Amino acid sequence: MTTVVAESVTQLSLFSDPASVAVVGASADPAKWGYWLASGALTGEHRRRVHLVNRRTDTLLERQCHPSLSALPEVPDLVALCVPAPFVSDVVDEALALGVRGFLGITAGVPGETELAARIRSAGARLVGTNSLGIYDSATDLSLAWGRFTPGPLAIISQSGQLGSELAALGARHGVGVSRFVSIGNQSDVTAAELLADLGGHDPTRVIALYLESFSDGESLFRTLRALRDTGRPTLLLTVGASAASTRLARSHTGSLTSALDVVDAACRAAGVLRVSTPDELITVARAFLSTTVPAGNRVAIVGDSGGQCAIAADVTSASALTVPDFSPALAESVALQLPNGAASNNPVDLAGAGEQDLGSYASVVEHLLRADESDAVVLTGYFGCYARDAPTLAEHEAAVAERIGRASAETGKPVVVHTMAPESSTAQALWRHGVPVFDTVDSAVRALSGLSRLQPPQPSNHVLSWPVPRGGLRPGYWAARELLTELGVAFPDGGIVHTREEAIEVAGRLRAPFVLKASWLEHKSEAGGVAVGIDGPEQLARTFANMHSRLGDGDYVLEEQDTRAGTVEILVGARRDPDLGPVIVVGAGGTETEVLQDICLESAPVGPGDALAMLERLRCMPLLRGWRGRPAVSVDGVVDVITRVSRLIAERSDIAEIELNPVRVAPDGALTVDALVVAAEPAPAP
Amino acid sequence: MTTVVAESVTQLSLFSDPASVAVVGASADPAKWGYWLASGALTGEHRRRVHLVNRRTDTLLERQCHPSLSALPEVPDLVALCVPAPFVSDVVDEALALGVRGFLGITAGVPGETELAARIRSAGARLVGTNSLGIYDSATDLSLAWGRFTPGPLAIISQSGQLGSELAALGARHGVGVSRFVSIGNQSDVTAAELLADLGGHDPTRVIALYLESFSDGESLFRTLRALRDTGRPTLLLTVGASAASTRLARSHTGSLTSALDVVDAACRAAGVLRVSTPDELITVARAFLSTTVPAGNRVAIVGDSGGQCAIAADVTSASALTVPDFSPALAESVALQLPNGAASNNPVDLAGAGEQDLGSYASVVEHLLRADESDAVVLTGYFGCYARDAPTLAEHEAAVAERIGRASAETGKPVVVHTMAPESSTAQALWRHGVPVFDTVDSAVRALSGLSRLQPPQPSNHVLSWPVPRGGLRPGYWAARELLTELGVAFPDGGIVHTREEAIEVAGRLRAPFVLKASWLEHKSEAGGVAVGIDGPEQLARTFANMHSRLGDGDYVLEEQDTRAGTVEILVGARRDPDLGPVIVVGAGGTETEVLQDICLESAPVGPGDALAMLERLRCMPLLRGWRGRPAVSVDGVVDVITRVSRLIAERSDIAEIELNPVRVAPDGALTVDALVVAAEPAPAP
Repeated sequence: MTTVVAESVTQLSLFSDPASVAVVGASADPAKWGYWLASGALTGEHRRRVHLVNRRTDTLLERQCHPSLSALPEVPDLVALCVPAPFVSDVVDEALALGVRGFLGITAGVPGETELAARIRSAGARLVGTNSLGIYDSATDLSLAWGRFTPGPLAIISQSGQLGSELAALGARHGVGVSRFVSIGNQSDVTAAELLADLGGHDPTRVIALYLESFSDGESLFRTLRALRDTGRPTLLLTVGASAASTRLARSHTGSLTSALDVVDAACRAAGVLRVSTPDELITVARAFLSTTVPAGNRVAIVGDSGGQCAIAADVTSASALTVPDFSPALAESVALQLPNGAASNNPVDLAGAGEQDLGSYASVVEHLLRADESDAVVLTGYFGCYARDAPTLAEHEAAVAERIGRASAETGKPVVVHTMAPESSTAQALWRHGVPVFDTVDSAVRALSGLSRLQPPQPSNHVLSWPVPRGGLRPGYWAARELLTELGVAFPDGGIVHTREEAIEVAGRLRAPFVLKASWLEHKSEAGGVAVGIDGPEQLARTFANMHSRLGDGDYVLEEQDTRAGTVEILVGARRDPDLGPVIVVGAGGTETEVLQDICLESAPVGPGDALAMLERLRCMPLLRGWRGRPAVSVDGVVDVITRVSRLIAERSDIAEIELNPVRVAPDGALTVDALVVAAEPAPAP
Repeated sequence: MTTVVAESVTQLSLFSDPASVAVVGASADPAKWGYWLASGALTGEHRRRVHLVNRRTDTLLERQCHPSLSALPEVPDLVALCVPAPFVSDVVDEALALGVRGFLGITAGVPGETELAARIRSAGARLVGTNSLGIYDSATDLSLAWGRFTPGPLAIISQSGQLGSELAALGARHGVGVSRFVSIGNQSDVTAAELLADLGGHDPTRVIALYLESFSDGESLFRTLRALRDTGRPTLLLTVGASAASTRLARSHTGSLTSALDVVDAACRAAGVLRVSTPDELITVARAFLSTTVPAGNRVAIVGDSGGQCAIAADVTSASALTVPDFSPALAESVALQLPNGAASNNPVDLAGAGEQDLGSYASVVEHLLRADESDAVVLTGYFGCYARDAPTLAEHEAAVAERIGRASAETGKPVVVHTMAPESSTAQALWRHGVPVFDTVDSAVRALSGLSRLQPPQPSNHVLSWPVPRGGLRPGYWAARELLTELGVAFPDGGIVHTREEAIEVAGRLRAPFVLKASWLEHKSEAGGVAVGIDGPEQLARTFANMHSRLGDGDYVLEEQDTRAGTVEILVGARRDPDLGPVIVVGAGGTETEVLQDICLESAPVGPGDALAMLERLRCMPLLRGWRGRPAVSVDGVVDVITRVSRLIAERSDIAEIELNPVRVAPDGALTVDALVVAAEPAPAP
């Protein structure tokens, strides 16, 4: 496997640094793809040989033009395919016969594309595309794409060419150039995962923009993204909500309550990938990442010179993933010492007139806050940056203050992000130069910092799970699920399997009333009248069994003690296997109203006790577990144990598709699961 | 009262069209306020006499400068106060003695400001400020403010001068000029409400940007905003989360679960005001409002030429207040006829290659969607706008398509909002000219449309409430609340008030077991052991009464029938009187876990049955009322009736501060309230 990857990476160099390229279907008309590919290729003539192919002309773009690949003076490393769809196949066959090893498929709608890609692959060659918008590499001046690129540190790998193009355009507008651009098109051969792995050795790349609509082989893809993150190159992921996996028929709450995007988000958290919602958000966060450091936490101190702007900034910040904590009295007091009377010295800090009296106040307050241990970043909002514009005599002083702010940020390793009303001023330029990102709206400033804060390197998971998971085969029904989960270490009420009234009464003799009788084989027992609760003794049991049996017939009935403990809280613990991204664990408010409550969270499985507790902390219903309105706290450790065990079961048993324990009834003395479902995976179809 | 308003409005013309102005504290230094006020005033010299006052110089800005107001050749209509704070009072007294009627207070921190404002007012004069950043009026070329303004249709009234200034700057950057600007500063005399009323007759104003941090006399303020909305001038409101009202000690869930901002939002909905979160959002929505029409609903059709961009647009749109509905099969089919094979014809519509083959596809698809009755607006995203830039030969054709799109939007009265990757292209300019707003990010395009959709004129409320509200005095305790609410028409379980064990047993004789015994005078009965449920007969009642009485002593105990109906859902109905914005009604998931569920909504009171039903529809728990998992539906009409009655009680009884019915137990046969609290308003302090 290692060898294959190594060979693949070697081959991929054809797409980043070919010694020679040929553009088939070259054109002089800027409305045509052939023009952009050809003229782009020619920008790299100093580095590689460029051949233009067009059967209808001898010269093009002031260069000699050849009628076919066979007429070229050499076999090119890489052939760009811009001819109309019906001709693509012939061109490829001609090229393969000549020994071409790399193809860039631009034209869309090529007939028989799957077979074409197979022919290319079996000839030992590779194809990017088809339906690609092109490729670009700043390190090698390779430009084979619609549009032009500005060199820079952002790699763009995109399943949509135009979205990749929009990212490049937005980046260029904001001074973020491109290191490498690959529009992967239909991925008929070369995949996003391969191209991402190839970025590991690409020096100009410092941050990666990835647009994907699907995540086939997602587990391996996210391992690659994690490895890139570990080398300091984070990925900003754009994706969309719909996917095949999210529309499949789910049999459990666990399936229906969570979307494919929830699973992607869990994979992102585990891999240190930041999912963003729009190209603008992506470029905004990239700009900040490329200029400053990632904050160690999400506490933000806000500084401004207008109460209104400070308050808006605080509201916007609090509405993001960030917090605006109160300062300690000691810090508030020491900030106040820096300011004239009347200035607010808690968070946010309103300089009021202090900046007008002494521009240096901006720097001294920011320095003070950065050095105190009460925030991880500073947002500066308002008039700073405008002094140079409105009163040119103040320009030099304002630039010096900007430099002080940048130095303090670098020294403390904490980012400062600025919102200024004069984004084009010389002071704004100075701030950028000194590692302080500047934005023209407070929205963008906070968006940038919020994104940065979510780019903290992922924590190693704390799952140290030493116990074995059960290995037995899967059988349908509640009783089998109960047996499997009991072996896993999950507690159920005492009970037994019964088939007749007599067996029921006999088993009841070993149990404590009241009892519950369940038609074990039904998936939706309650709706089908397959659950009876509050059975207080043998006589009622006999009647109830007879009644249920008369309606539902023979089967595995289960008789259990009813959980009558006071002060229980119902929790759902579920797990499923995402077809692309692997096992996930789901925790939520349980019981029959789970869908109504919509109080749920999801992580990649397995999880350790710390992760499981963090999941519970994210639920709105957590206060109920901690003891609500004078009730005693229930056993959080008990639920945490169930979550970790179930997460390990789904992670290690690929024959299981879904698991759901609902409700897990949690009382002060521990958790008891009173209903459970384990769904076997469909056998993989024969290859 | 009418006379006072009329006089006040007349007087306010001093601040928009004075015949003469004097700037006291004029300066030639651009770092000083006196420079900006003086040089700004001089831009209006063709229309009014401008006098500069500075005791230390004879000439300033190439004009004669006077040592004092008394030295001027006339008594100016309006005096701008830019002298240092300690001198302001003397300048005002000198001016009042001369007969000056209008003051603009720029300088902040004036000692004795309250008394100063009182002196101004009692002399029949008016003051804007102090601590104002200035005023501007485009119709009269009046500029008395820091900074310069571009004339246009946006009125800005701001409690924060700098935030007003940021709004003007952002507007100017995006082509939205200012009709009138008033930085109201400390509002020591002239208030925001007066200035807003004054905009009613201001022709250049088409939309209003309002920044307020507090809403004293908010009910009258919002009536003014509603009146402005009714004349076609909507207000976009920026405010911040914290206010004195939100921090007061609340005695009920109703108080603690809702914030001052929830109340502002309710007032905004009722008045047709749009609350926005940032200056950027405000300007984005204003740009769209000024170019196109308000959509009649929130259904959006998305059109693009890239699957990726279409999907991102759909995700961003769905995450806003808008929806992206599926098309009917008939519409999808007819759209497909306009497109080559392979293009997606449902919502979003991906033109794929259609635009490249024929630019007219953009217009014909948009026209088709606008004319169909399945959406209220269209978002066009992607490459459109770039053809002119990338292939200049296509510029004319693209401009013609832009015009077609604009015409179709105007003819159908439905807005089209465009996101283009080439916002500076000639096509983008053409779109703006034809009433089609264009943005450089899909974020802004959707933000604009989402704001527009929330600018629909407010619906007249449907409360036709013909029954009387009870007029009796308020007494403390549950029994009194129960009596008041019973008179209002709210149903409680049968019960009676009892003071001794004997009375309890006597009352029980008239009721059906099981019973509930409550210590009526306690506010948090359960926590204090003042509620006993499930009392099944006289013997248990006697024991329970004795026990409770031994712990809690004499008092009004209430014995009630316990509500044992099956399938009930618990709802909270609350109401309170906001000190600034008046009565509000609150509806939420009820019971003891109300705070945990956080499933609540709030509107201005009173509400009619339609409003009440709409509130229930906004709750996550609504499916429980409609019949959940096979249970019968409960009486939604019953809850609606309770909501409307309670809303009318808070609206008409200003002696009530808070009302809370929790829980209201709703079963198929109706709603029964089983606990209630009515809190009397604190008597107003003596004047």
